[in-house]
Amino acid sequence: MQEQFFGKTVLNSKVRTFSDDELTQDAFLGGKLTLRQPRIGYRAGVDPVFLAASVPAKPGDRVLELGCGAGPALLCLGARVSGLHLWGVERQPDYSELARWNAESNGLDAVIETNDLRDLSAELRQMSFDHVIANPPYYDPSQRVPAQDSGKEAGLSIETPLADWIKAAAKRTAPRGTVTFIHRAEKLPELISGFAKYLGSVEVKPFVPRTGRDAGLVLIRGRKEGRAPFRLHAPIVLHQGRQHMTDGDDYRPEIRAILRHGGALSF
Amino acid sequence: MQEQFFGKTVLNSKVRTFSDDELTQDAFLGGKLTLRQPRIGYRAGVDPVFLAASVPAKPGDRVLELGCGAGPALLCLGARVSGLHLWGVERQPDYSELARWNAESNGLDAVIETNDLRDLSAELRQMSFDHVIANPPYYDPSQRVPAQDSGKEAGLSIETPLADWIKAAAKRTAPRGTVTFIHRAEKLPELISGFAKYLGSVEVKPFVPRTGRDAGLVLIRGRKEGRAPFRLHAPIVLHQGRQHMTDGDDYRPEIRAILRHGGALSF
Repeated sequence: MQEQFFGKTVLNSKVRTFSDDELTQDAFLGGKLTLRQPRIGYRAGVDPVFLAASVPAKPGDRVLELGCGAGPALLCLGARVSGLHLWGVERQPDYSELARWNAESNGLDAVIETNDLRDLSAELRQMSFDHVIANPPYYDPSQRVPAQDSGKEAGLSIETPLADWIKAAAKRTAPRGTVTFIHRAEKLPELISGFAKYLGSVEVKPFVPRTGRDAGLVLIRGRKEGRAPFRLHAPIVLHQGRQHMTDGDDYRPEIRAILRHGGALSF
Repeated sequence: MQEQFFGKTVLNSKVRTFSDDELTQDAFLGGKLTLRQPRIGYRAGVDPVFLAASVPAKPGDRVLELGCGAGPALLCLGARVSGLHLWGVERQPDYSELARWNAESNGLDAVIETNDLRDLSAELRQMSFDHVIANPPYYDPSQRVPAQDSGKEAGLSIETPLADWIKAAAKRTAPRGTVTFIHRAEKLPELISGFAKYLGSVEVKPFVPRTGRDAGLVLIRGRKEGRAPFRLHAPIVLHQGRQHMTDGDDYRPEIRAILRHGGALSF
């Protein structure tokens, strides 16, 4: 598997080749999915898994991920719901190539376009999707020391304004289709403004580390041409108890079901 | 007391006189405050009490309420924190007159200006406040059947855009001063956009009727010239248990402390 994988790298001379040492092989959804990711660089945490778990996709639906990186959210969704048509856009060629390999090695069909989300191909611009998802970079490059690895830096830093992500997502969404983003709670003002501008029926689902704490992450969803009022849902509590008491993770059973067993996360 | 009260009505020929039958006398903060309110019209619920409880005012601070109605939020705050300088603005003359009487009859000094919040007096426009608060009307007049009573209609309906409320509040706030609004959660997109435009260090505190439910109300606070990231706090749960089980109210003890004993509500 690994030889075949690196064989492909060699065949495609346009992409930066990751060497063996530069990649790890990581299990997602309790081993249902195995993804290769750069050892140093942007690596998926739980966020893309939650994002994938929250999408109300049905077999046959078309799904687009903007800024898909090595593909964790898109492919977790593809592993959870069968028969989806998966598309991804990723600006960094080495990550988009990884996403293609990750799809193929997991037996999933996915079309990954190497492109800036503000400048999609004519083919993509003629398509519309039932669900568009994104897990945009989290950190403002003007307010932090850049990561030494350029791929990690691009995966973490905000170079494209969030409003552009939301606008691009809304444009590619079919009537009544959904747009879902996962992001840090502190970006909620920009997220809500953008979603309210381009979409309707906006809903926010916060994640809190423990009961009574501030939200760390938020899921935000809007519906193209939706007309329902804004809703702020009860937070999802990630960990058991008021503080970290045990060795290892102390995820609540519902969270473990999402992370380890491909469970859905309803709003 | 009641005679003196109605005596004043007669003295001021500019205001609509409420007759005896048209007013009720209602206890707030466990009787610490008694307010006269129109029997039919806009009547205070728990919202202004929560708003007042959330303001981090210290003795000597200047506080302004926009759209103060008969004064419940402003006067609850005055009853909770001694030595405040209280100012209110209310567009409807009969309600602003009630607010003046309610202040006086409770031994509180408050200056109530009868004016549209978008067109304040020269005196007010030269002042700045440590805290500005508001509990703007909740319902969109285009989407509901108007209330038969014109005062209730004006107190409930959105005639002034929320953005104008926020802009007016921010303009009257001193550097490092706070602006706090209480409103329905479904208005969060407009609230957050406005607060993020005119203020910094924006924080949202949702209220949920019971654990696990969507937010009904939200408190939102910003600080003039604040630079802290946006924060979404853990929700305040109003009622005990998963559903209404007992006769009477089933407020949680912390909520009862706020409503009945003038307790503070910290963000």
